[in-house]
Parts: sequence; C-alpha cells; structure tokens
Amino acid sequence: MIKLVLVRHGQSLYNLENKFTGWTDVDLSEKGLKEARDAGCILKKHGYIFDAAYTSVLKRAIRTLWIVLHEMDLMWVPVYKSWRLNERHYGALQGLNKAETAKKYGDEQVHLWRRSMNVRPPELHKNDPRYEATDPKYKDLKEQEFPLTENLADTEKRVLKYWHETIAPAIQSGQKVIISSHGNTIRSLIRSLVQYLDNIPADGIMSLNIPTGVPLVYELDEHLKPMRHYYLGNDGEIPKDEIPKHMPSKK
Amino acid sequence: MIKLVLVRHGQSLYNLENKFTGWTDVDLSEKGLKEARDAGCILKKHGYIFDAAYTSVLKRAIRTLWIVLHEMDLMWVPVYKSWRLNERHYGALQGLNKAETAKKYGDEQVHLWRRSMNVRPPELHKNDPRYEATDPKYKDLKEQEFPLTENLADTEKRVLKYWHETIAPAIQSGQKVIISSHGNTIRSLIRSLVQYLDNIPADGIMSLNIPTGVPLVYELDEHLKPMRHYYLGNDGEIPKDEIPKHMPSKK
Repeated sequence: MIKLVLVRHGQSLYNLENKFTGWTDVDLSEKGLKEARDAGCILKKHGYIFDAAYTSVLKRAIRTLWIVLHEMDLMWVPVYKSWRLNERHYGALQGLNKAETAKKYGDEQVHLWRRSMNVRPPELHKNDPRYEATDPKYKDLKEQEFPLTENLADTEKRVLKYWHETIAPAIQSGQKVIISSHGNTIRSLIRSLVQYLDNIPADGIMSLNIPTGVPLVYELDEHLKPMRHYYLGNDGEIPKDEIPKHMPSKK
Repeated sequence: MIKLVLVRHGQSLYNLENKFTGWTDVDLSEKGLKEARDAGCILKKHGYIFDAAYTSVLKRAIRTLWIVLHEMDLMWVPVYKSWRLNERHYGALQGLNKAETAKKYGDEQVHLWRRSMNVRPPELHKNDPRYEATDPKYKDLKEQEFPLTENLADTEKRVLKYWHETIAPAIQSGQKVIISSHGNTIRSLIRSLVQYLDNIPADGIMSLNIPTGVPLVYELDEHLKPMRHYYLGNDGEIPKDEIPKHMPSKK
C-alpha cells in the first residue's frame, strides 16, 4: 500500500498580514516555522520515511520541507523543486490586502477570483515590479509560459503536468514521496486523485480549506486510486470543516 | 570564463571535539553555523549566483549549503546530494579523539592514516554500531560498495567518478556550480583540476589544509583547466599556509 504525504507550507508572512500571495516569494512567519517543526515531529513519531521530496521554487514551501526533513533526520533525501508546484499566480492581486480588496471590489468578485475555476484575477503588467519573469528562479520558463495571472484551471493544468510526468511515475516505481506545497497546488492534486472515485464532486475540492503545516496522508492503491486519507496530528486541533468531507475518510 | 565555487562545511561538533568524523553524520557547531552564514553573505556580496549545487549525504555539508543558499536568497537552486561526495570513510577511527589516538598509536601512524594516499585506517566491523550500510541514506549503495575504511586514493576514486560523470558535464554545459563538501573531497577535486597544470606536485595537495566555511573559487577555461583561484573573504582571517601555494593564485 502506497502512502503519499502532502503538506501545505506553514503560515507565511503574507498569510499573517491577510495578503494575496501567489508567486510572491515571502518567507514563513514564526508560527509557520513552528508548524513546520510540528509537521516534521509528527511524521517522525509515526515512523514515516521518504525516498523523494517535491516542492515549488517558493521559499515558504522549500523552508517547510527543509524543516520537516531536519526534524525527521532525513536531510539526505533528494529534493526536487519545480515552478509547476508553485501556488496559483494571483496576477495584479499579489501583495494586496484581502479585506481591502473585498471592500473595493465586493465580496462576490473576490470570491470569484479566489475560488472560481475559470475567472482570472486582473493581469500583472509586464512593467510591474511584481512581474518576475527575469528572476533567475524562472530561467527555465519560456516567456509565453510565464503567467500574468492564473485561474484555478490554469494552475491545475501545470500542476498535473508535473504530477503525471514526474511525481506519479516516481510513486509507481516504489518511491515514498512527500510533497511540500501550496493550498491551490494541493487541491489540484487532490482533485486529480479523487477523479477516479465514484460519487465525488471534484468541483467541491477547490473550496476545501487545507490547514497549514499538517501532513495529509493519502493511501493509494497501485493505480494511485485513493483508498483512504487522514491528517496526521492531534485531530482535535484541526477544525472539522477543514477535513475533506467528500472523500472516504479514516474517521 | 567559468567560476567553480568549493566550500568546505563549517565547523562540525566533531571538529570541535577533535574527533575523527568520516561518515559519522554529525551536525555543525554554533561556530560552523556562523561560518556557513558568513560564506553565504560573502558570495552574495560578490554577486555570485548558481544554477546547480552539489553536496554529500552528510548533514554538515547539506546544512552548510542550505544556509549559504538561504543567505544568498537562492533557496530555489537545484541541490544534488551524493554519497560519492562524502568525507573520506575513516574506518574504526570514526568517533575516536585524535589526540588520544595519537597517544595510543603514535603521531607517525596517525599521520599516515590521515594523509597517506595508500594507507587505510583499521576497518570497521560489520557488527559495529558505526557500520551504517543499512542506513536508508545509503540504500542506493550495493553492500560491496559500502566502505569499511578508505585511504585517500579510495576516496578520490569515487569522488572523481561523480565529478567526471555528473558535475564536470554540468559545468561544461554552462551551469554555474557550487559544491559544499568535505576536506578530503575538496582536496580530491583540486588534485583532479590541477593535474592539467605543469609543475604542480599533485601529491602535495593532499596535505593542504582547507579552511572551513570559506568559499574557494576556481576560475576554469572551457576544458576545465584552472586559470587562477582564490578564497573569497577577508584574506587576513585565512592563515597564509592554508592558501594552496602550489597553484597560480590571484595574489
């Protein structure tokens, strides 16, 4: 039986300031650092070990992974970083306060920008200092691939390309895998996994709230079909409505 | 012109306790953590950037690299870890105090064990708790490849296999590379680089003292022939006899 571990990065400085983050490369907050340490401790306590780790090129996810690997005494594990596992690109909303944005554009518009598969936030202009196509971390990305904004379908497309081409084959070859990533990235992966299950409204997944720094374990069969899933940790600390209800669960 | 950066890990807990370390997976000391931060700061100050980073599977080298990449705001750089870049395996000397060992076996014997190309320290027994062949970090290593001890020639052989098969081709394809590694590993790499130079006594390299946490830069031509080399940092802090004298130098 295959166990895949997904971890959303610990609280970031922008999470703390209630800002849209997207590809803005902010670090973890103090609370986020602690969440990452806790995630590593609980994985170690449960005897997890990994052959490969995947993350984005954003430091909040990389640092979460580094801290987890440090706590587990697994610093030697190969780490693969890809922009395809980045958070959804939030376009011109990046860096804006979520509450102020809601006041300005209305709750309904902000909800659409955040949770609709097809609505894209306003584009970043190429002369905006937040447009990072020249950042060396994106040197492997062709200019036309570099997003000015993304809707959730855009994000899912590039996340799943990496999943199908790189991560899924590694898992199927027997590698024990951890993915340290972002809210929308993880929701995209979950949507992909549960599409093989009957009676699962895949659309509902995109509104799931994934808690930060809590390992989410998917037990998969050999075809990567989910058998069950659960969060690792003190379940009491995880709000009930943050546990994906639409899927077969341990509880 | 190609710049290759070599960094010996910062001071480890065993360096501090004057113990033979080898493959013992000890962490950095407080001083070692600071050395790593300083190495990152000076590389950043000089405008270095990397496309790829190579290190061993030992945490003192990995942590040094992580801290360097953090300080340089280059956490996204791909990191490749290989046991072939590990420190020389010190056999049954691992964990022993160097001074006590010299008292017991004599300075001359210890010097031979430390600096001779051909003399191996006593072997570790397979039932010794220090024998780590079952450690998952070595799962890709066949049992007959797992060393019970190594002389410097053994170390050099496996280091250079990785250099020629993996690192050198990456450099020649245009990648800017940093290697965070160990004293004997770095000396092996230097021996390999300077073999192309006339009038260089390659044997002398193995007695070079490489300072911890100080970036050593080799400028190479397209055939990876060294043109010049220098340490990055406040030269006054590096003892004069620790700068490789046998090679063309910046000063």
